[in-house]
Amino acid sequence: MSNISDTAIVGIGQTEFSKDSGRSELQLAAEASLAAIRDAGLSPSDIDGMVTFTLDSNDELDLMRCLGITELNWTARGPFGGAAASATVQLASAAVASGAAKAVLIYRAFNERSGKRFGQPDAGGYAAMMGGPDFHFAYGLDTPAKIYSLWYQRYMRKYGVTSEDLGRYVVVARDHAATNPAAWYYGKPITLDDHQNSRWIVEPILHLLDCCQESDGGVAIVITSADRAKDMKNGGVRVKAATQSHRFGGQIMFDYYRDDLAEFEETRTMSERLWKDAGLGPKDIDVAMIYENFTPVVFLALEGHGFCKRGEAKDFIRDGHIRLAGSLPVNTHGGLLGEAYIHGVNNILEGVRQIRGTAANQVAGAQHVLVSASRSGMILGPL
Amino acid sequence: MSNISDTAIVGIGQTEFSKDSGRSELQLAAEASLAAIRDAGLSPSDIDGMVTFTLDSNDELDLMRCLGITELNWTARGPFGGAAASATVQLASAAVASGAAKAVLIYRAFNERSGKRFGQPDAGGYAAMMGGPDFHFAYGLDTPAKIYSLWYQRYMRKYGVTSEDLGRYVVVARDHAATNPAAWYYGKPITLDDHQNSRWIVEPILHLLDCCQESDGGVAIVITSADRAKDMKNGGVRVKAATQSHRFGGQIMFDYYRDDLAEFEETRTMSERLWKDAGLGPKDIDVAMIYENFTPVVFLALEGHGFCKRGEAKDFIRDGHIRLAGSLPVNTHGGLLGEAYIHGVNNILEGVRQIRGTAANQVAGAQHVLVSASRSGMILGPL
Repeated sequence: MSNISDTAIVGIGQTEFSKDSGRSELQLAAEASLAAIRDAGLSPSDIDGMVTFTLDSNDELDLMRCLGITELNWTARGPFGGAAASATVQLASAAVASGAAKAVLIYRAFNERSGKRFGQPDAGGYAAMMGGPDFHFAYGLDTPAKIYSLWYQRYMRKYGVTSEDLGRYVVVARDHAATNPAAWYYGKPITLDDHQNSRWIVEPILHLLDCCQESDGGVAIVITSADRAKDMKNGGVRVKAATQSHRFGGQIMFDYYRDDLAEFEETRTMSERLWKDAGLGPKDIDVAMIYENFTPVVFLALEGHGFCKRGEAKDFIRDGHIRLAGSLPVNTHGGLLGEAYIHGVNNILEGVRQIRGTAANQVAGAQHVLVSASRSGMILGPL
Repeated sequence: MSNISDTAIVGIGQTEFSKDSGRSELQLAAEASLAAIRDAGLSPSDIDGMVTFTLDSNDELDLMRCLGITELNWTARGPFGGAAASATVQLASAAVASGAAKAVLIYRAFNERSGKRFGQPDAGGYAAMMGGPDFHFAYGLDTPAKIYSLWYQRYMRKYGVTSEDLGRYVVVARDHAATNPAAWYYGKPITLDDHQNSRWIVEPILHLLDCCQESDGGVAIVITSADRAKDMKNGGVRVKAATQSHRFGGQIMFDYYRDDLAEFEETRTMSERLWKDAGLGPKDIDVAMIYENFTPVVFLALEGHGFCKRGEAKDFIRDGHIRLAGSLPVNTHGGLLGEAYIHGVNNILEGVRQIRGTAANQVAGAQHVLVSASRSGMILGPL
């Protein structure tokens, strides 16, 4: 049995989300981290562990020097890019649950718009980053939008999902962003026509407005034991379960080599573990934060998590379930399309806010939140 | 309190150690991993977690495909190069202790001689790998031997350590390698004159024979719960404690910015945690495996761990304590100078063999082994 559920998120912090931060990635990491540590009512010297992505450019020792942390007894990084987003919490919670550390800082910070842009063609970069073979490049698969569209297309064809169906998700995400002052698209809702009229990025799958943002910014989280959380400044949000699922035959980015391209198998198996570990099911979830590099992955995830049946995400969305007043509000901060793309870690912060009751778009009485990054995920709940 | 001590190493595996493996790094990782899994009496489908270095080139999904692993629920990587060597066990044991995974595979494999050589000048590489500032390059600090010698020199001057003193360690390490069939320098002991007559790499600090090897090879370890270990093919070796220590002001590689360059502060603080967690002290250790990229770090480590007083490592070594018949046999496989440089992880395998009683240079009745990589370390013991 897991004892990750004996841990809690006790602090969250973030910088502004922009397109040109005007400062270093390390500065962003430090600002977000200090905000998270203060939000927990701790000081930097209380931190004794750090977790980030293998892709993060900020060295742990540099960051501890910026913050004034005395000693770290735990450092760990999650591989696989965005798939690591929720794994960060698993790694930090395991450190606390095993006694390896007492208070672990998670950080992710980058200038993804003004610096190195993930959205630009990259012959060797994805291979180097992700370990994937770059022979696909010769076939024109040189950006994430193109790479992912190849398998989104199979899903859309199998279940008759149209670009308008995709647009209905984006309209909701942008509605949520429009009333979230921290969102890049604050005050800027869109119509379905706006979505349809935005230029093609990968025809006939992705319009511009189906693509997550490229953002500059930093976010951070502090995790400690659930027992200790009870006495802390802003209380704590329990990590009821957190896991990863990586399956035989899978690949990051170039994930074309599986039997059925019309489902996200890892999202299903990851969810099954979450439900089992937390003793909960899809009906128990009040709010869901779902990683979206591009719109279609939300559809695959809604089905993979079991919120609706396979092929029915388009109906689930059309029927309004994912709106604030719906049965399962999704990405209430605007998601990575509407708030910012901080590699999915900003979704965790919104999950915490919903349970604290401090979200800009608060879902009344939210108790259990699923945060998913397709291959990693968690269920958050009250202490 | 830590419950990492509820975990055990149940399998070890390695390839041959060479200068030109003639095959890919992934092949080396797969061969070592399969050997470790079989040594545990498990099959690949029993593995549900993986841990390696951020520097390892082998993608987890590629390796699971090679081995036939069904699903991974834990992936984590340790930053900081060689400092991660013992951290791998901490990360894997925390996964098991927290319930995040049941059986975690640790791997490290590279063609460090025939492929990318760490020993060659590198203007941007160390900065990119280690997060250190590369402005040092302009001052001629372009290889690890040069970079580290700058602070070894302070230690040697303060305590009057001579090149002959260094050589006395190397003679012992090479004696151990000479009777270890797996060692690159099997059957090739040296004299102190050989050491003194080997060419300077960094005058007046490091001769050629003070430098660890550049090796091709792979090693792997399987970790599961101590309870489960009791019923396994080759039993288990308990991870009595495992931790990391990274301190304010420290840097990887260019670690010049501390108050006292004549001690390895992190080795001291890391050890203090190990002693406390394991309820043991230096006198309880039967055998020690100490990471040596270059000879002087063994001296700093012997003092940092508390096996002798500061400045007295040269006497401790001269008096024969680290020989097989001594009070604290060190690097009984030949160390990274004599067996191979698999980034320090091969030291862990030798620690396991000593407790199993299967080492080539077996220390009779070895019960407690310290394995140290300066900033990370562990104490191994019987189940």
